Amino acid sequence: MAFAAETNPVDALKAVFRRHASGVAIITLNAENGDPVGFTATSMTSLGATPPLASFNVASGASTWAHLCKAKYVAIHTLTESNIPLAQKLAADHTKRFSDSDWMRGPHNLPIFEGVSSVLICRIREIHSVESNAVIIVEVIEGLVGTEANPLIYHQRSYKTTADIV
Amino acid sequence: MAFAAETNPVDALKAVFRRHASGVAIITLNAENGDPVGFTATSMTSLGATPPLASFNVASGASTWAHLCKAKYVAIHTLTESNIPLAQKLAADHTKRFSDSDWMRGPHNLPIFEGVSSVLICRIREIHSVESNAVIIVEVIEGLVGTEANPLIYHQRSYKTTADIV
Repeated sequence: MAFAAETNPVDALKAVFRRHASGVAIITLNAENGDPVGFTATSMTSLGATPPLASFNVASGASTWAHLCKAKYVAIHTLTESNIPLAQKLAADHTKRFSDSDWMRGPHNLPIFEGVSSVLICRIREIHSVESNAVIIVEVIEGLVGTEANPLIYHQRSYKTTADIV
Repeated sequence: MAFAAETNPVDALKAVFRRHASGVAIITLNAENGDPVGFTATSMTSLGATPPLASFNVASGASTWAHLCKAKYVAIHTLTESNIPLAQKLAADHTKRFSDSDWMRGPHNLPIFEGVSSVLICRIREIHSVESNAVIIVEVIEGLVGTEANPLIYHQRSYKTTADIV
């Protein structure tokens, strides 16, 4: 077996996730006072089609966590290879994430960023806290469908896109 | 806004996930009688590093579901662009997934496939059933670290790999 054993669990997690690629999404919602909040997520995934469900993970230390716990709706944006600046902005200083005019109000008054490949409008259904993180389960209400461009991928701490296997 | 509204929630989910890319993993474990079982998953993601946790989703109609509910440990394999046959085999006829000699017994007697980029050995910690699907939360015990090859991606119903954005 051509494997090296990594007996430290934290180091094992890091080594394995360096080898795993993820699609990049951004999640937006409204704070109780109506202000837009949001963050970049690499954990968004489908949880079945009947009914249509999705899930994503968030750290309970994240700036958006307290707002998620009180929100009813979220907008999940799928990103393209052209959206690196947006992915970086929604992962940086949380006070500046909505300071540009690249978003507007959509269904349920949710903040919707332009130029992404699609948006899922979802109702928050369950929140499962586990240690200092949580799994958020949402039910899809409707969608906003944009262009079918090359998707944005996060791998080895870099933004990439997909390619055919040669 | 250059979006088309998709008011049918199931069609919205499908349209959005066609635009989202996922890394590909395979999950293996032992049935109560010791037989190896497993499946291909595009939902594997990290759930924090302290303690090191991961999550993945599974349909309760899947052949492995009943075994997951009784198992204590799972092995999560990250795949490379060379692992398409393995990804396809673990998504096809469940009676033939372990009929080749491309796997061996690893920690906790878990079935481990060769030629993957890494394996996380995990203890199942929580199972949250939601409708006809479930979120499985696992804690990392240790890792088996292999080569750092191009990862396997699933996008638009095809297997792909990553590329730099030009």
